[in-house]
Amino acid sequence: MRIVALAGGVGAGKFLRGLQRIALDEGHDLTVIVNTADDIEMWGLHVSPDLDSVVYWLAGAMDRERGWGRAGETFHAREALEAGNMLPTWFAIGDRDLATHLFRTELLRKGWTLTAATASVALAFEIPWTILPMTDDRVTTMVRIRESDHLVHDVHFQDYWVRRRAEPEVRAVRFEGAVRARPAPGVLDAIGGADAVVICPSNPVVSIGPILAVPRVRDALWQRRDRAVGISPIVGGAVLAGMADRLMPVAGLEVSALGAATAYEGLLAGWVIDEADGDLAPKIEERLGIRVAVTETVMSDDEVAAAVARTALDLLG
Amino acid sequence: MRIVALAGGVGAGKFLRGLQRIALDEGHDLTVIVNTADDIEMWGLHVSPDLDSVVYWLAGAMDRERGWGRAGETFHAREALEAGNMLPTWFAIGDRDLATHLFRTELLRKGWTLTAATASVALAFEIPWTILPMTDDRVTTMVRIRESDHLVHDVHFQDYWVRRRAEPEVRAVRFEGAVRARPAPGVLDAIGGADAVVICPSNPVVSIGPILAVPRVRDALWQRRDRAVGISPIVGGAVLAGMADRLMPVAGLEVSALGAATAYEGLLAGWVIDEADGDLAPKIEERLGIRVAVTETVMSDDEVAAAVARTALDLLG
Repeated sequence: MRIVALAGGVGAGKFLRGLQRIALDEGHDLTVIVNTADDIEMWGLHVSPDLDSVVYWLAGAMDRERGWGRAGETFHAREALEAGNMLPTWFAIGDRDLATHLFRTELLRKGWTLTAATASVALAFEIPWTILPMTDDRVTTMVRIRESDHLVHDVHFQDYWVRRRAEPEVRAVRFEGAVRARPAPGVLDAIGGADAVVICPSNPVVSIGPILAVPRVRDALWQRRDRAVGISPIVGGAVLAGMADRLMPVAGLEVSALGAATAYEGLLAGWVIDEADGDLAPKIEERLGIRVAVTETVMSDDEVAAAVARTALDLLG
Repeated sequence: MRIVALAGGVGAGKFLRGLQRIALDEGHDLTVIVNTADDIEMWGLHVSPDLDSVVYWLAGAMDRERGWGRAGETFHAREALEAGNMLPTWFAIGDRDLATHLFRTELLRKGWTLTAATASVALAFEIPWTILPMTDDRVTTMVRIRESDHLVHDVHFQDYWVRRRAEPEVRAVRFEGAVRARPAPGVLDAIGGADAVVICPSNPVVSIGPILAVPRVRDALWQRRDRAVGISPIVGGAVLAGMADRLMPVAGLEVSALGAATAYEGLLAGWVIDEADGDLAPKIEERLGIRVAVTETVMSDDEVAAAVARTALDLLG
């Protein structure tokens, strides 16, 4: 079976470890299409947080406790930059993580596409799957924040999320460059040929939203809607990590397993929600006309993640 | 007093800690003009080994045992690059050292000159002196090595020294780009206005040689020859560190305190040699017509380095 997953960062990473286990056990092929709209240039390097999260989690190189970055990481370069007041250090890059960014940046500087650079990063971490950026073009999530009556302005997603700790009031989210972006090579073919499309439990607004905003991707997914399933990133009306609770209302979405499903209206045949949200199942099934499975979705380990993936795939029959 | 020092890497660093102590104690002004011909682009970053050595030693941030790099350094980024076979790792860059290169590269990318970037690096390390690259232009030491009867080729100095551990037979050394290089802003003025010019105990061929190869620098030094003194990097006919013993013969220089002085013929009023070479003093004085001081020059600590610097300055009366 050919499985295509749409992924953001940490939540996707946890889930993908489970999906990967099933793919290995059962001999499936796996392609992961990853959000790149929160990529940022930092210290002169091209940083792709979601691509790296997916790679690190699939490779088992992630820091499971912290969620982001690599296991056993140190931050000596960052500390030196900070001590000398050399470059901004609000965006933490670990020393081992730096290696990935140095490598990617060097390949891009040589003229490689992000797709090709990503394949090389995946190879370096011995990932046996296809990891694709959603696009090779520059798409950037910009967040319009209100800092005072007189200061409403657009900042890079990382500026909002990491530097300002998601504290400012958000007025809007937009994906700069999306209308002119082209899907990365392989993205449309992968979706078109998928036996199963899985939307990972990622932020529907700023993780999966940018992927859907790349022209022709939504249409390709719509074609495969009968083979598409998603996992709710909202459990008990709250986020497990991240700031979806603050951004979903801006996008007109209720912060619930129903609201998250609504973000993918028309694109899904099935939706997996947590036991905490079991009473929402009939409502979601009725409103969106899709099958809903209720299971434990808080992925404290790979065992649970594999069970969630199993449940998701089973929804497709 | 305005003191100008010409410097390479580690030997210069050790000596400059002594010279700095005297400058602080006696209220002198210090300008260090540094070799940049072994600069190299590594991991997409502009690495200036000698500039950084001088800064790290003057700031007390150096690893005294190892000689190069920063104290308490880790190499996690390099290890990650190596583990993933991502980028060449024969040139070791530590994690804290990386911060300096990231900063410098970012400034250069923004259009800053190396002179301006170096001033910012020096400021980050709270160096109270003026550190100048010899030039803002690209000058590169190329080493012609003979690897077999059929393979004689030119490689970057770091390729010869670090990657090949100075093992191949050397046929020639040249400074690519030197004839078209211009002295960095401040270099000629500093030399012209110097009350004392000090040539650090650095490799005369590949550390001080490139500085002298920048057009107009040799002439400026010649004008100040009555106020110029040097310290021999050769002690007892051997090098304390580095590969001067292999490169001096290629440049027609004897590997001795006399041979090293000969490299600066016409540019010096005084020369400091080690006690081990005391018997060479009359010969050097006679051959080169300069004053020679004999003292302990193996700079095991700052105390000794300060004594060497004192001896050197005293030679100028």
